[in-house]
Formats: sequence, C-alpha cells, structure tokens
Amino acid sequence: TKTLKIAVIAGDGIGLEVMPWGIRCLQAAAKIYNLSLEFSEFDFASCEYYKKHGKMLPDDWKEQLSGFDALYFGAVGLPDVVPDHVSLWGSLLQFRREFDQYINLRPCRLMPGVRCPLANRKPGDIDFWIVRENTEGEYSSVGGKMFPGTDREIVIQETVMTRTGVDRVLKYAFELAQSRPKKHLTSATKSNGIAITMPYWDERVAEMSQSYKDVSVDKFHIDILTAHFVQRPNHFDVVVGSNLFGDILSDLGPACTGTIGIAPSGNINPTGKFPSLFEPVHGSAPDIMGKGIANPVGMIWAGQMMLEHFGYKEASAAMLKSIENVLSKGGDAVITGDMGGRGNTKTFGEAVEQDI
Amino acid sequence: TKTLKIAVIAGDGIGLEVMPWGIRCLQAAAKIYNLSLEFSEFDFASCEYYKKHGKMLPDDWKEQLSGFDALYFGAVGLPDVVPDHVSLWGSLLQFRREFDQYINLRPCRLMPGVRCPLANRKPGDIDFWIVRENTEGEYSSVGGKMFPGTDREIVIQETVMTRTGVDRVLKYAFELAQSRPKKHLTSATKSNGIAITMPYWDERVAEMSQSYKDVSVDKFHIDILTAHFVQRPNHFDVVVGSNLFGDILSDLGPACTGTIGIAPSGNINPTGKFPSLFEPVHGSAPDIMGKGIANPVGMIWAGQMMLEHFGYKEASAAMLKSIENVLSKGGDAVITGDMGGRGNTKTFGEAVEQDI
Ligand SMILES: CC(C)[C@H](C(=O)O)[C@@H](O)C(=O)O
Ligand SMILES: CC(C)[C@H](C(=O)O)[C@@H](O)C(=O)O
Repeated sequence: TKTLKIAVIAGDGIGLEVMPWGIRCLQAAAKIYNLSLEFSEFDFASCEYYKKHGKMLPDDWKEQLSGFDALYFGAVGLPDVVPDHVSLWGSLLQFRREFDQYINLRPCRLMPGVRCPLANRKPGDIDFWIVRENTEGEYSSVGGKMFPGTDREIVIQETVMTRTGVDRVLKYAFELAQSRPKKHLTSATKSNGIAITMPYWDERVAEMSQSYKDVSVDKFHIDILTAHFVQRPNHFDVVVGSNLFGDILSDLGPACTGTIGIAPSGNINPTGKFPSLFEPVHGSAPDIMGKGIANPVGMIWAGQMMLEHFGYKEASAAMLKSIENVLSKGGDAVITGDMGGRGNTKTFGEAVEQDI
Repeated sequence: TKTLKIAVIAGDGIGLEVMPWGIRCLQAAAKIYNLSLEFSEFDFASCEYYKKHGKMLPDDWKEQLSGFDALYFGAVGLPDVVPDHVSLWGSLLQFRREFDQYINLRPCRLMPGVRCPLANRKPGDIDFWIVRENTEGEYSSVGGKMFPGTDREIVIQETVMTRTGVDRVLKYAFELAQSRPKKHLTSATKSNGIAITMPYWDERVAEMSQSYKDVSVDKFHIDILTAHFVQRPNHFDVVVGSNLFGDILSDLGPACTGTIGIAPSGNINPTGKFPSLFEPVHGSAPDIMGKGIANPVGMIWAGQMMLEHFGYKEASAAMLKSIENVLSKGGDAVITGDMGGRGNTKTFGEAVEQDI
C-alpha cells in the first residue's frame, strides 16, 4: 500500500486543540483499514511563528511542502497579534493560490443529532456537494481607484474568467455528479444581471454538458438559488459556482443544515501536481482558545474528506459513520457546549476515535 | 390634500390579473383615509405591446411617465413571445435606470398565516428591510471577451462603484434605520476577498456612520451574512448591500420568511425628481396565467409600500393589517392554492379589500 504523506499545520487558537483529535481519528482508521499515513508537523502558518520571524511562512515553504500529498490544516489567525488580512493572505490563501488548489469542495449534509434551522427536515433529506472555483473570477487583483478623496471618486475591480479556469472546475463538478446516484448538477449563475462574465459561464456549462450526457443539469440565478437552498435543499446533488457564488453557497448550505460550525472544506488540486489542503471551515476562535472546549468534529470531518479524496472508501465511510454515531448517540456528557452538551474537545474527540 | 398621481402598468401574464385587486385595495384605503389617488393605465411595457409595435415602449415613454409620482407595476415577460432579456431590459430595467431609481427596498417580514421554512419562528420575530444599491456596482456594462473561441479565451467584467452611488444608498439606509425603534444597520461586505471595491464600500460605511451616531452599525461578509439570515434573522433591522449582494439578500430574506411569492419591491428615487416604481417580486407566471388563481397579495402589498413611501402612515398601516388579517384568518376558501387554500385571485383580493 502506498503511503499518504500528510503535512500537519495546526496554525493558531483552537486549531492547535482540535488537530490532535483529527490525527488520532485518522490513525484509528488507518490501523483498522490498513492504510499507511505519514504525518509531519510544521509550526509555520501561525501567528506564533509570525511573532518569532516577522512573517507567516519561511522563504522555502513551497519546497518544504511540495512533496506532500496533502496539507491537513487547522485554523489561522489571532487578530490581537497579527491583522487577519496579513495572517490569512500570508498562509491559507497563499497555499490555495501557489498550490493551484482550484477546487474548493464542501459537503452540505444534514447529520443526525445536529439541530437543523429549517423546519421539518430530517437526516438524509439534505446531502449535496458544493464545488467552488477557487482561483479567479470575482477575487481578482486587477483594478483601482480614481479621483481619490473627492466627490468624483470611483473604484473599479475586474472579474476575470478564463476558459481554462472555468472549464477545469466544471469538469471536476460534472465528474463528481457522474459519480453519484442522482447524477445531477446545478450551476449558479446571474446571467440576467451580470451580463458579460455570467453568460460566458452559462455558455461553458452548456458546452461542457455535451460531454456528460448522463448528468442532468439545471441552472439558477444566484438570488433565487439561495432561496431554493432554504426552501428545497433536497433538490440538490452537486452545485457548482464561481469563486464568489461558491463562497456564498458554501456558507449558506452548511448553515441550512446546522453544520457550519463542524463543516470541512477541501482545497483541491485534482492533478496531484501540488498538495491539496483539508481544513475545518471554522476559524481559530480566539474567544474560546485554551479552554479545551472547542468542537473537534470539523477537524475530524476534514480528515475524513481527505481520505475520501484519495480514494480510501471504506476508511472514510467508517469515519463519517462514527462522526454521525457520536453526534446522535454520544450524549450530553460527550458533546461540546456549542451543540448543547457538557463535554469538551477530549470527550468528543475520544468518542469518535473509539467508535471507528 | 395633494393628489398622488399613479401610472398603472400591469404588464403581462398574472400582472394583468392581480393589478385590479391592487387598485381596488388602494381605492378602499383612499376612501377611508381620505387620500386622493389618481390612476392612469398604460398598455406598454408588455409583450402584447411588443407584438403590435415591435418594441416594449413607445419612443416618448419618458415624457408620458415623468409627471407621475409613482409607477404601479405588475409583471413583465412572456418568454414564448419575447425573450426575457428583451422584455425585461426593455421595460423594468429601463425604468430603474432612466428614472434613476437608485434604491431597491424590500421588506423581510414573518407574517401570520404564512408557512415559514425556518424552525421555531413566529410572526413578529423577523421584521427588517433590505436596501439595495440599484444602479451600479457589479451590474456594469463595461468589459468584454478576448481570444474568443480559443483555449486562451478570457472574459472580463468590471465592478464600478462611485462615491456618489455608494454614499446615496448608504444615506438612505442610515436614515431608514434612524426612523426605526432598533436603529440598527447591517452592511453586507466581502472585503476579505473582493479586495478593491469592497474595502471601499466599508470605508464609506465607516465615514458615513460618523453622521449618524444614533445608529448602531455592524458588517458581515456576504458568505456568513447569508448564514445569519437562516440562523438568526431576528438580529436584523436594516440591511444595506451593493447591487449584487442586495439582489441576493432580497431573495434570500423573503425566502426565509416564506414570503417570496407575496413580497413587494420598491424601486425608489428618493429625490422625487423621477417617479418611483412599486411592484410585486413575483414574475408574470405564464404557467398559471388566465386561470384566475394567482395570489394577489404581492400586488396589494406593493401598493401598501407605495402609500408608506409617500408618508400615508395610517392608510398603509391599515392595508398591511388587512393583508395580515386575511392571511391568518381568511380561511381555506379564500386563500389561493400556492398557500394551501382553495380560493382564487378574486376571493383573496376581495377579502383584503373588504377588511380595510
Ligand atoms: C431580472 C433581474 C435582472 C433582476 C435583478 O437582478 O435586478 C431581478 O432579480 C430583481 O431583483 O428584480
Ligand atoms: C477568508 C476568506 C477570504 C475566505 C474566502 O472568501 O475564500 C473564506 O470565506 C473561505 O471561504 O475560506
């Protein structure tokens, strides 16, 4: 069996507290399912590192990390020490860009034991993926300001979409849809209002769908699409969107299932040329750091996604099952306070580890 | 008493069917509260007109309409007759632009008798306004395509924000917040990702808030803001956003309260230099047109908003109360099928009219 080489970057705040449980659960799964996982820990991409070195990353970070299959990432940011835009753009967003992690993938899944803010939905009703373009589009660095400080002030920022950038995320999304029973893809657009870039997006979806005749496709304008997430989340199977639309939908989706505090996120380079990065969606949560009460599920679920991404089907299915078991049956003394229990990071993490 | 001059443009499809009930309810309110309303009907801005004249509007539409205080607008579009982008951009979007209706205003209100897709929310819990910039921002006409049809294809669209455009919508939003008991304003941003235009938006909010010290302000990135709409809609009082963010939030908000099918929308020129336009959010619904079963509440509520906008407090409060009375107590035989009843446009409209 091939060894999966994993760079562990715990980062800041609760990232440091939940990471050990992510690793322990992965090790438990590895033992049972006979996987070879190799973990190497790094202290950079943290504000502690910044305090010592005046930067978030060493100059040779790319060489140090390039040989890994995956980065297993905790959370970054301590705004009292380093401003967020410095810590984030100097680490996580740098990884996404430099390692060309052009897919951001997030599950939207109604889990047993999780309080759902939507009425009358039960586990199983909602289960879809959001595929976000992660490198271009609305997040561009081109633009600027004219007549600054005057009444004539005007600010311009360009949205840039390339055929390469659009086609590769669509390809990934179509193939993901193809791999699922429902084989359904929903495209997020706004071609009735954003009348230059979004019609292009639609054009590429239409063109690409010719090569995936077994995938049924629909599209919705982003405004009504957000409404559908609330009104009929059961409709969706795979949803693909531009950088901005994907960003919005991948917070809204997990909010609709009540999982935003425990959701994972994969920043994926499907070519394997560079490592992919798996992280919990939650941040470093400085307000609760050091107390040992952070919910470790996001970190564990991110590990589960990592195994799934690399094709370890049985092991990843088992991990997901164990997460769900503990969420639904772990009980008050095990579950953390954010989910209404009296447990802590250790009780929660240990329960999942032992269930695997 | 001053006469309110109202241009009635029913448009297409169910617009034609709900408009009479909007007018009747307004007339009922006018009678009781002693208002002078003058209605003038126009047949243009409809696909029927397009069939006869090959265009959506007569050449002198601006002269014909400029003298009115308000346009009371039904719905436009019959995609089998005229493509949507032709009918919409040739009428509604033309009005918004040419009459410089730079505010789009929409209520987000949990009403009695309306099924709310969120769990454990009751009427009164959710009651806020969404203020959208309606003329610039992400909806710009600047940009284009390079290397078309090749692998190097690239498409660019510029987001344009001007000091004039941003400040005037913020001013409106701050003043609206100031007029409400909670005096709270939430700004939608994405300055952590859209790093040129959105920090500018934040800057203007911060600057402007100096002049409205009695208004408390917070801001959220659009991704997490959509999550908050689902998780704690009771937090909001007035929410202000750019053209795109406002568009998204003003569909998502009413979706969260179950009112998207009956919500109204005001396209407002606060200076009074040009008429403002009040319309239901729903479209022309060609699938149910001609059957007399369309829900008239969106049209009536749009009329209510119009009265509120022009300062007729008592009359508009009475209309809103009557809408809520009939929604909650009208009964099965009165309410239309979209809300689970067996009634029709007439039974529903008449019930509201008689309640006023
Ligand atoms: C039809 C479309 C261009 C329009 C918009 O995005 O402005 C609609 O969604 C609206 O909100 O009135
Ligand atoms: C921190 C921010 C720039 C980032 C993004 O918008 O990409 C975040 O919202 C995310 O989704 O990981």
